[in-house]
Amino acid sequence: MSYEHEIRVTWADCDPARIAYTGRIPNWALDAINGFWEDLLDGDGWYQMELDRNFGTPFVHMSIDFRSPVTPRHRLICEVVPVRLGTTSITFRVVGRQGGTLCFEGEFVNVFTQADVFRKAPPPADVREKIEAVLQPQPAQ
Amino acid sequence: MSYEHEIRVTWADCDPARIAYTGRIPNWALDAINGFWEDLLDGDGWYQMELDRNFGTPFVHMSIDFRSPVTPRHRLICEVVPVRLGTTSITFRVVGRQGGTLCFEGEFVNVFTQADVFRKAPPPADVREKIEAVLQPQPAQ
Amino acid sequence: MSYEHEIRVTWADCDPARIAYTGRIPNWALDAINGFWEDLLDGDGWYQMELDRNFGTPFVHMSIDFRSPVTPRHRLICEVVPVRLGTTSITFRVVGRQGGTLCFEGEFVNVFTQADVFRKAPPPADVREKIEAVLQPQPAQ
Amino acid sequence: MSYEHEIRVTWADCDPARIAYTGRIPNWALDAINGFWEDLLDGDGWYQMELDRNFGTPFVHMSIDFRSPVTPRHRLICEVVPVRLGTTSITFRVVGRQGGTLCFEGEFVNVFTQADVFRKAPPPADVREKIEAVLQPQPAQ
Repeated sequence: MSYEHEIRVTWADCDPARIAYTGRIPNWALDAINGFWEDLLDGDGWYQMELDRNFGTPFVHMSIDFRSPVTPRHRLICEVVPVRLGTTSITFRVVGRQGGTLCFEGEFVNVFTQADVFRKAPPPADVREKIEAVLQPQPAQ
Repeated sequence: MSYEHEIRVTWADCDPARIAYTGRIPNWALDAINGFWEDLLDGDGWYQMELDRNFGTPFVHMSIDFRSPVTPRHRLICEVVPVRLGTTSITFRVVGRQGGTLCFEGEFVNVFTQADVFRKAPPPADVREKIEAVLQPQPAQ
Repeated sequence: MSYEHEIRVTWADCDPARIAYTGRIPNWALDAINGFWEDLLDGDGWYQMELDRNFGTPFVHMSIDFRSPVTPRHRLICEVVPVRLGTTSITFRVVGRQGGTLCFEGEFVNVFTQADVFRKAPPPADVREKIEAVLQPQPAQ
Repeated sequence: MSYEHEIRVTWADCDPARIAYTGRIPNWALDAINGFWEDLLDGDGWYQMELDRNFGTPFVHMSIDFRSPVTPRHRLICEVVPVRLGTTSITFRVVGRQGGTLCFEGEFVNVFTQADVFRKAPPPADVREKIEAVLQPQPAQ
């Protein structure tokens, strides 16, 4: 039961090749990860995590393979899975599909910070617990 | 019964003042107008209108009043109403609200074109008919 | 001698009609206004105004007429002129041209705020003085 | 002598943490790669490559390490170096720095296509020659 995030791809996202511009795709993956947090934390995404819960998750790495063009012909479904959880870091795997076709897949690494001082720090205990409940460890690739 | 388009406002949309960056707002109004077309034309937005139906609706004017900041605290509901329909033009009123509070209101004017030649032209007859069925004429302001 | 801001229009900005997507244009006008401030205030744009000088300029209104498509064939030159200065507000006229052709023209109204409390307030005296030196009052349209 | 692309980072790019939003960074790397092509091909970027020269360079992979936050305090200088050239592919290394500090580094892989049929194809011979003249092969990492 992974979290799935739906994106409406539109004209606004497409370039003259009539497919979504490449630069849109990492942004959608990020939107999907934010959606994962909203889903996990009772509606709280990055904004509430930083401002209300005083922890942040800045990105230290992203890696994406683009498999098929994304178009406005279908909604884009982004599956988000936390695959590794360290003391002060988390790794997500995000897979984007349209009409069943694999469009992109990527890995995204965040570190946890105490937001008000922008310093690395373990996440709040209740957050760690909730992540552990949905973690799907995967063999390193 | 106006068309309402829901936007997930997130961290990604906010500037250091902790509210949505102004430049995001016209883009959301445009997304909402595209959503209006999808709703009116059985799922066909600007992309399908241009590529499958060979008509376009380039913008010739936009005017927006910003009434209250937009934040990630609520979904942003954009109400889209076609308020004037000329032979080769259409005017939309778009009103954005969050939790019942008016955030912005604007007027957007498009001309209809034959897409493959990028030339002004009346919209297809079936499209005109569908617009007329939802038109809510308003006194000029 | 108005401030002119140059924009590199690229593939990334274009939609399947092979012209810049409408939603990019208000963003460029905003970039140009930010550039005007950088030019006026020794390199300080909105970011430094808010964080270092403790005043902000949120938008209350924008109005744009789109005259010709914007394309990557030329740089886009945005001329920015402050045309009205009130006690707590400022109005800019922004005109975008490519290769001498008028592409868009618009009017943008900001209010001045004290940034840390997000409350309307007159701008710092030295800022007012610098604006007055470049103000080009225009008859209301 | 690598190509360097300058980005004006502004308020518009920053999130409530007062640093550039992560999703902006891959877009800047892409802008820089487009700038590399403009520099190599007498002003022709992706737009002119596709429309005038009938070849495209869709992305198949990107990988970015984020080393330090990007802010509006300095211009962002993106160094772009083609590091591998295959029969129908090219790999770029892009390194972003601000005031001498390393902000991010990444690798981007494109395939060459014949644009009008969107099919993999070697690049035009004159383009290959120009790339070879600036290629800086690097050991695989």
